[in-house]
Amino acid sequence: MKNTFGSSVCITLFGESHGPKIGAVLDGLAPGIPVDEDLIRHQLALRRPAGRISTARQEQDVFEIASGVFEGRTTGTPLTILIPNEDTRSGDYRRGALRPGHADYTAHVKYHGFEDYRGGGHFSGRITAALTAAGAVAIGALRNRGIRIATHVARCAGIDDAPFTDPETQTEQLNRMPFAVLDEAKGAEMRAAVEKAAEAGDSVGGVLETIVTGMPAGVGEPWFDTLESMLAHALFAIPAVKGVEFGDGFGMADRRGSETNDAFALQDGKTVTRTNHNGGINGGISNGMPIVFRCAVKPTPSIALPQDSVNAEGTREETLALTGRHDPAIVHRARVVADSVTALVLCDALALRFGTDFLAEET
Amino acid sequence: MKNTFGSSVCITLFGESHGPKIGAVLDGLAPGIPVDEDLIRHQLALRRPAGRISTARQEQDVFEIASGVFEGRTTGTPLTILIPNEDTRSGDYRRGALRPGHADYTAHVKYHGFEDYRGGGHFSGRITAALTAAGAVAIGALRNRGIRIATHVARCAGIDDAPFTDPETQTEQLNRMPFAVLDEAKGAEMRAAVEKAAEAGDSVGGVLETIVTGMPAGVGEPWFDTLESMLAHALFAIPAVKGVEFGDGFGMADRRGSETNDAFALQDGKTVTRTNHNGGINGGISNGMPIVFRCAVKPTPSIALPQDSVNAEGTREETLALTGRHDPAIVHRARVVADSVTALVLCDALALRFGTDFLAEET
Amino acid sequence: MKNTFGSSVCITLFGESHGPKIGAVLDGLAPGIPVDEDLIRHQLALRRPAGRISTARQEQDVFEIASGVFEGRTTGTPLTILIPNEDTRSGDYRRGALRPGHADYTAHVKYHGFEDYRGGGHFSGRITAALTAAGAVAIGALRNRGIRIATHVARCAGIDDAPFTDPETQTEQLNRMPFAVLDEAKGAEMRAAVEKAAEAGDSVGGVLETIVTGMPAGVGEPWFDTLESMLAHALFAIPAVKGVEFGDGFGMADRRGSETNDAFALQDGKTVTRTNHNGGINGGISNGMPIVFRCAVKPTPSIALPQDSVNAEGTREETLALTGRHDPAIVHRARVVADSVTALVLCDALALRFGTDFLAEET
Amino acid sequence: MKNTFGSSVCITLFGESHGPKIGAVLDGLAPGIPVDEDLIRHQLALRRPAGRISTARQEQDVFEIASGVFEGRTTGTPLTILIPNEDTRSGDYRRGALRPGHADYTAHVKYHGFEDYRGGGHFSGRITAALTAAGAVAIGALRNRGIRIATHVARCAGIDDAPFTDPETQTEQLNRMPFAVLDEAKGAEMRAAVEKAAEAGDSVGGVLETIVTGMPAGVGEPWFDTLESMLAHALFAIPAVKGVEFGDGFGMADRRGSETNDAFALQDGKTVTRTNHNGGINGGISNGMPIVFRCAVKPTPSIALPQDSVNAEGTREETLALTGRHDPAIVHRARVVADSVTALVLCDALALRFGTDFLAEET
Repeated sequence: MKNTFGSSVCITLFGESHGPKIGAVLDGLAPGIPVDEDLIRHQLALRRPAGRISTARQEQDVFEIASGVFEGRTTGTPLTILIPNEDTRSGDYRRGALRPGHADYTAHVKYHGFEDYRGGGHFSGRITAALTAAGAVAIGALRNRGIRIATHVARCAGIDDAPFTDPETQTEQLNRMPFAVLDEAKGAEMRAAVEKAAEAGDSVGGVLETIVTGMPAGVGEPWFDTLESMLAHALFAIPAVKGVEFGDGFGMADRRGSETNDAFALQDGKTVTRTNHNGGINGGISNGMPIVFRCAVKPTPSIALPQDSVNAEGTREETLALTGRHDPAIVHRARVVADSVTALVLCDALALRFGTDFLAEET
Repeated sequence: MKNTFGSSVCITLFGESHGPKIGAVLDGLAPGIPVDEDLIRHQLALRRPAGRISTARQEQDVFEIASGVFEGRTTGTPLTILIPNEDTRSGDYRRGALRPGHADYTAHVKYHGFEDYRGGGHFSGRITAALTAAGAVAIGALRNRGIRIATHVARCAGIDDAPFTDPETQTEQLNRMPFAVLDEAKGAEMRAAVEKAAEAGDSVGGVLETIVTGMPAGVGEPWFDTLESMLAHALFAIPAVKGVEFGDGFGMADRRGSETNDAFALQDGKTVTRTNHNGGINGGISNGMPIVFRCAVKPTPSIALPQDSVNAEGTREETLALTGRHDPAIVHRARVVADSVTALVLCDALALRFGTDFLAEET
Repeated sequence: MKNTFGSSVCITLFGESHGPKIGAVLDGLAPGIPVDEDLIRHQLALRRPAGRISTARQEQDVFEIASGVFEGRTTGTPLTILIPNEDTRSGDYRRGALRPGHADYTAHVKYHGFEDYRGGGHFSGRITAALTAAGAVAIGALRNRGIRIATHVARCAGIDDAPFTDPETQTEQLNRMPFAVLDEAKGAEMRAAVEKAAEAGDSVGGVLETIVTGMPAGVGEPWFDTLESMLAHALFAIPAVKGVEFGDGFGMADRRGSETNDAFALQDGKTVTRTNHNGGINGGISNGMPIVFRCAVKPTPSIALPQDSVNAEGTREETLALTGRHDPAIVHRARVVADSVTALVLCDALALRFGTDFLAEET
Repeated sequence: MKNTFGSSVCITLFGESHGPKIGAVLDGLAPGIPVDEDLIRHQLALRRPAGRISTARQEQDVFEIASGVFEGRTTGTPLTILIPNEDTRSGDYRRGALRPGHADYTAHVKYHGFEDYRGGGHFSGRITAALTAAGAVAIGALRNRGIRIATHVARCAGIDDAPFTDPETQTEQLNRMPFAVLDEAKGAEMRAAVEKAAEAGDSVGGVLETIVTGMPAGVGEPWFDTLESMLAHALFAIPAVKGVEFGDGFGMADRRGSETNDAFALQDGKTVTRTNHNGGINGGISNGMPIVFRCAVKPTPSIALPQDSVNAEGTREETLALTGRHDPAIVHRARVVADSVTALVLCDALALRFGTDFLAEET
């Protein structure tokens, strides 16, 4: 299946960084869901490089909805979004220089040299624009049902953001911020650290934390297709994500059961947990509490500093000095991609559980 | 698909903790692979609770190969392993007491009370015995091709094991140890800490680190079915796993690109990387270096300390005091399950890449 | 996926004709559905060879439900049915004699000689006993929702059965008959023809016609997973099925559009069609009329007459004279298998459309 | 998965008859396969309505390859082909008139009125242009390996074409003919009959027969994913296909086993069958003989004659009199779609069996 993911609601991605068009096909979404083109534009703008801490490549991300929308609503048949590649400078890239930390080498082994190597080709972060556009439609569908997703830069260049205190309100606020943090002072520190790394010809990584509110209990499967499995599957497909943890995650490894079990209580006649160390998922199934997870985003592999490498043919060692336009950090841009794949996975899980009309029925 | 995972080589799991039989169907494995029943027994013994730091429940794990093996070798058609449940004391469990940290509540919501609740039913760690048996066959198949997997308890109760220094040799050694550590002194400390937690009626968590050697480059997909995605999907299906990271994982978030990019070099005419911060995977595809990842295992949720809870019907808050037999730690037992799902995912990825006969051809 | 079929409700088959056990795992069925073991026994009895027109091999088809049923109802987790092979006479079969019309040659090419060749191994019609047992559970689930399936031997040895006149009533009646025909006189003629072929050391084929009543409209997909595609996929997996047609099928090829279009009308405020040339499916989606299709079943390939063949190694031509026990016709036994796969496909399609609880909600 | 089909090589279809663009994503094809744009154009021309026996709608079918091709060859990553809809006259269609034999009613039930109803929307035969374009790439890939596919109009309006006598030569010839028949005189008779039906405001159906030569033995699965199952799944997704039979198909139902078993023989040291009643497939697996199957194509449901119908809301019976442009026959156009889906299924089956590089290796 490769570039297609999902069972009932699924996404197919295509395109290369310097090819004619990138795009996504979103299939299986319920009919009748309003498609908000402004939300798509908004999400694309959040993903787009901007300011001093991002690459200077400018993409307008003008998109075309080629199918699946009629009179402003989903038809229920495949919804296709196309984004032409406009500002491509293929001359910035040359064949054979394997960029450490990138997929140049593995692509060369897998595709025997036939891959479109320009700008990372199909492996480029550029493809996430299509994922973001499709994700925006999924995010809109979930809002119909009162399910909201938000992600903040929980850590960047060693600096921690504040934790969530009031998810419902903060979710709205984060979704408007280009550099999404809960504590703006911390965000300013992070950006300063990124600029400093950029000046040194280097890059930084970070951690994203995502929260989902309004998710009904009882969604997910006990084995293999646990909600954690499905989310992690999609999250690890985001370039640069090297770790995923749910709830207290790796922090649980050092704790005792009495500290990590979430006690049950009754609240307004509903079963809830008093704490949420398990991140809203027990036994692979949502328990009705907010779903919380974190993704480790590695530093952008494209750096200006010279690096040891070899040529694609594997015949000669050579030093690589990248020129061109690069992001000293992508964690703040990856944020909107994390939201997007989360939305797509949840739409799929909900449709599998409650049927294909579920997302169209406003709550 | 739920309880089935994989595309070309796939596994189907079934059974409940206190039902007649648990089992696994391993489908798509190449014909002609020797099936080593001693290896299956060995792996089952490693998973089985033993000693003072495990539950007193004794399972002989006598298994029957019901299909798919003929004259000692795989036929290429579904290989089914059945394990009868022998030592089941259903009386230890009563309906309605939602155990915090377990799937009791989510199962009740999803299955409307029709779930077999005894001993966790289909959610029980018991089911991993079937996964382990099937995994042993996959591990044997990979050995045919020179691919070896080993996992150690990298951290338990706050105590770190030593890191890998000589994977090829250490792999063999770890696969013989009931409590797999690279530094036996550290292992003794860990076990002491587990016993101490047990005495307090509590439990501990830990971190597993897995290494795969001999994996060919060029396996995995750029989007969605990245090797990290496929492995994480399967690893998060292991009960109690709440985090997965590849290579330096979350540690990369605090580093710079110049510190996390793995420089390429030529070694005996082959392209290799000088470091392995990316854990053997770039752009979702294996690069020929050892694949390295770590799983966070939460403390066993079954503890003797009293816990706040509610009844299954959600009508009454009540205090839960578990009696019966429980593991104060499962991280050392989960180790063999991590090896098993890893083997299954790699068999699938290799068969997809190189065809269904690949695993049968000895290198 | 091979031996697994379905998305939301799926079936995994395993076993060989002369191996220890055959079985099926039915996953994804809603929780709380009553499991009627008598119905399973009844369906197995209908499939079992009986009388002069079937093989003398006697199987009691004693089955064990190994998982997924608790207190008489489905749990919602994988339901496993095991059937031990009891009456196996491996001596009747010898290696190397490729039986024309069977899978001996193709199995040998695919599995390189490692296949369990005894009695056809995994390709044996014997495996359909497991499919029948699982199908019986699916048939029971559909009855919950008022959906009924019946198949008759529409043609055998050149003799036509009468057509359906009153499906609702006839469905009940057919499901009780070992040799299911609508006109018993025609059935007697058919059986006589089968016996005559048997005396000549030969075998006969036939056509099965299936009708499904009570199927809601709006189920199926426009492309690829059309209801016809899903049903045909499963039906062509039944050994000996070489043709599938829906509604008037091949007969439509010789007609005009004005004769094959089904005019719409209103009946009791509901949109219906006046005729059903399209077999209840338009554009791949059920239209609420009875679903009707026919399967061509080829003559049993096992015949007593001598046949030209070669050895498995492909080194020598030789004459094959089969001894042992064989069916001179299987069309009447394949009937219950057609019902079974139909039920499984419909359960899957309904769960995908209306959610995983749908089948549990009695109408 | 709906609009996506295949496991290792898969196709995703999207678009509506009167939407901006239709298209297909072909994923998983080996890297390095030459992409012959002339062949795509040729296949699109064969599918395009032409002459007096087709609709007057004129589509240039100008296509754009938006991704997956670099320097004239496949990259191995998703290959996307887009076809803009140019000549759309939405005014020809009005909402609410349910066209008998079409998907108007079932689409309305499934999509609750949100479907793009213009020209059949996503259900339109128009979408097969995208399928044809993608199929052309698959056909080219198979040619690399010496595998060739051809389909002729075996029967139309009750007139039979001649049978295949020399498949290798005839395959080439058929692939150049707009109305593909083996006997041109019979073809002329068929076309005359189609014109006659058109004059009567009516339409005709027919039967397509497909032959595949050069297919290696050992491809396909014993249960569920038999080669017949996979092919039938895809063939039944072609609009208007209501029957599929392999080899002698329904004709086998009236014959004896001694007449339908294909005797084995040795030819140039290779195991072959003397006859091919089973159409090149035994036990669901290719046996190395030509694969032969036939599809029943129903008469075009769009006819000029008045028809009884109801409105979409189901509130009023009304008479429908279609105006606009319609095909009095589509069997000759469906031919190229049959070739396309056949090529896609075989590419998938071969890649699953022999690995993802198989199709790139020229024989």
